Amino acid sequence: MTLESELSKKTTLFNTYWEKYLTAGTPPTLYQAAWHLPHAGGKRVRPFLALTACESVAGDMNAALPFAAALELMHNFTLVHDDIMDRSVLRRNYPTVHIKFGEPSAILAGDLMFAKSFEALLDTAVIYETFKQLEGWFVDCIIGICEGQHLDMEFEQRATVSEKEYLDMIKKKTAVLFELSAKGGALIGGGSSKEIDALGTYGTSLGLSFQIWDDYLDMSSDEKTIGKDIGNDIRNGKKTLIAVHSHSHATGKQKQLLDDLFGDRKATDAEVNKVFTCFRDLGSIEYAQQQALHYNTLAKDALGAIRSSPAKQLLSDLVDYAIHRVK
Amino acid sequence: MTLESELSKKTTLFNTYWEKYLTAGTPPTLYQAAWHLPHAGGKRVRPFLALTACESVAGDMNAALPFAAALELMHNFTLVHDDIMDRSVLRRNYPTVHIKFGEPSAILAGDLMFAKSFEALLDTAVIYETFKQLEGWFVDCIIGICEGQHLDMEFEQRATVSEKEYLDMIKKKTAVLFELSAKGGALIGGGSSKEIDALGTYGTSLGLSFQIWDDYLDMSSDEKTIGKDIGNDIRNGKKTLIAVHSHSHATGKQKQLLDDLFGDRKATDAEVNKVFTCFRDLGSIEYAQQQALHYNTLAKDALGAIRSSPAKQLLSDLVDYAIHRVK
Repeated sequence: MTLESELSKKTTLFNTYWEKYLTAGTPPTLYQAAWHLPHAGGKRVRPFLALTACESVAGDMNAALPFAAALELMHNFTLVHDDIMDRSVLRRNYPTVHIKFGEPSAILAGDLMFAKSFEALLDTAVIYETFKQLEGWFVDCIIGICEGQHLDMEFEQRATVSEKEYLDMIKKKTAVLFELSAKGGALIGGGSSKEIDALGTYGTSLGLSFQIWDDYLDMSSDEKTIGKDIGNDIRNGKKTLIAVHSHSHATGKQKQLLDDLFGDRKATDAEVNKVFTCFRDLGSIEYAQQQALHYNTLAKDALGAIRSSPAKQLLSDLVDYAIHRVK
Repeated sequence: MTLESELSKKTTLFNTYWEKYLTAGTPPTLYQAAWHLPHAGGKRVRPFLALTACESVAGDMNAALPFAAALELMHNFTLVHDDIMDRSVLRRNYPTVHIKFGEPSAILAGDLMFAKSFEALLDTAVIYETFKQLEGWFVDCIIGICEGQHLDMEFEQRATVSEKEYLDMIKKKTAVLFELSAKGGALIGGGSSKEIDALGTYGTSLGLSFQIWDDYLDMSSDEKTIGKDIGNDIRNGKKTLIAVHSHSHATGKQKQLLDDLFGDRKATDAEVNKVFTCFRDLGSIEYAQQQALHYNTLAKDALGAIRSSPAKQLLSDLVDYAIHRVK
């Protein structure tokens, strides 16, 4: 049983299951806009996490399917709204929803998926106390994601952001949903408090590692020729962990260089290259790599509280996958 | 006990209660954007409906307070997103959220209120079966409102809309939330199936009456001098019941006049006046008035299934209020 074959197996199972929430409706254009992104594919990492966490506490993963559908609907809703705010034109190699259907339809498509996520959650067959716990976490997670997205936008307008602020932002924007996926799956599977807490910590650490590794990949993909993404991030002044680390460690000429060129939308390729070299010389790219590995270690440590099983092995393999993927 | 004094009393009670959901948070700007509209006032008709419907089936209205908060949060979330889509600049005499805080913050503020509405709903102290019923209705209501808003936008782009299509649209966009408020309050209050159904019908009819009366008021407010709103609605080709009725009854010269001038953004004041006269001559303004009264009768008829009580009297008075208000 390899991670890839299991990921593929669970994705197929999940895709078959959640179709029932992606029903057609009236007006048709609204539903086409809503199911555009769900049908565009995606790795379904969050459903996989929920199903596997459920199994890892000896639960029946089928019991976690409605929750997995709720997670993926909620995740897709946040992506559609984020793309409007970030003015993104492509997602999963397709035009984003607001580009294809217009902004008003995209706002409503997101709202519809949001509502549908609660429809799916309601289908979870658990006792009332468990349901209240699960939905409370679910609501808190959405609130966290809204806060994280707003912070991310605010950071783009600010000259400096501390590492603590950056971590707080990605915890909310990304890690909180990984945390919910893992601990929610464990809750539905009947895990003990200790197991649920451990899987929550595992999810948070995995989410942080995923996000920081993304930052690292963007900057390390091709060190010789500066790619388009790197140029954009530098010109837009995107506050990645690498940028945050550089800004807090630069002095003298390097500080001056970052102050002058980082976030300068008109920076030339040569100037972008100077900023990139500065990031590297300050050890910021290596630092991001180390931090991703650090959170990977924390994720694996958290699994210490979980009994041995094929599901536990998959969760452990997923940690390695998080830092070996090339996007 | 007059309707006005009771409305005022329950609004005060409600405003004190729901403050706990309007808490400050981080980042502060997001929370300021989210609570901008709730703090700008509003008649709290939907909370009043929920609390009074609860009382009308001999329930304790305090039990319906979390549900009332959920309704008002959900209502405010839809208003904030609608204002973005409709490019509205004023609401309750304040700048709309996207005008004051920018569109990205307004989208997130709506999403945050949406999440908070489920937080409030979770605080309802009922048995599991009742909760599932209530949340199922709540989710269906949001889906209906999304569909109704999308239809409303589509209608603006269309040459003709049938009366049935118009009624289906306002049922979803407006009446479904009145229905939910009334039947949800009755469910929490322990009403019988017959009472809950009756209050649902009452809410639907009241909502339709409210919306059609709005259409009527816009056109009848000042028949001698055509007001700015009338001009805008005619120039934008807004599909009100009056416009829909006129289009389906006009023939010959009147049909030609409507085809030429209704929806013409460059129409002169004299041309707007011609359209208005056409609406009046075709009996469309009177028809809208009659239809509002018709739904008022249906709302009062539905109350026949409810035992006599001061709360029932208030619900009946609210029906009269719906058609006597001048906005």
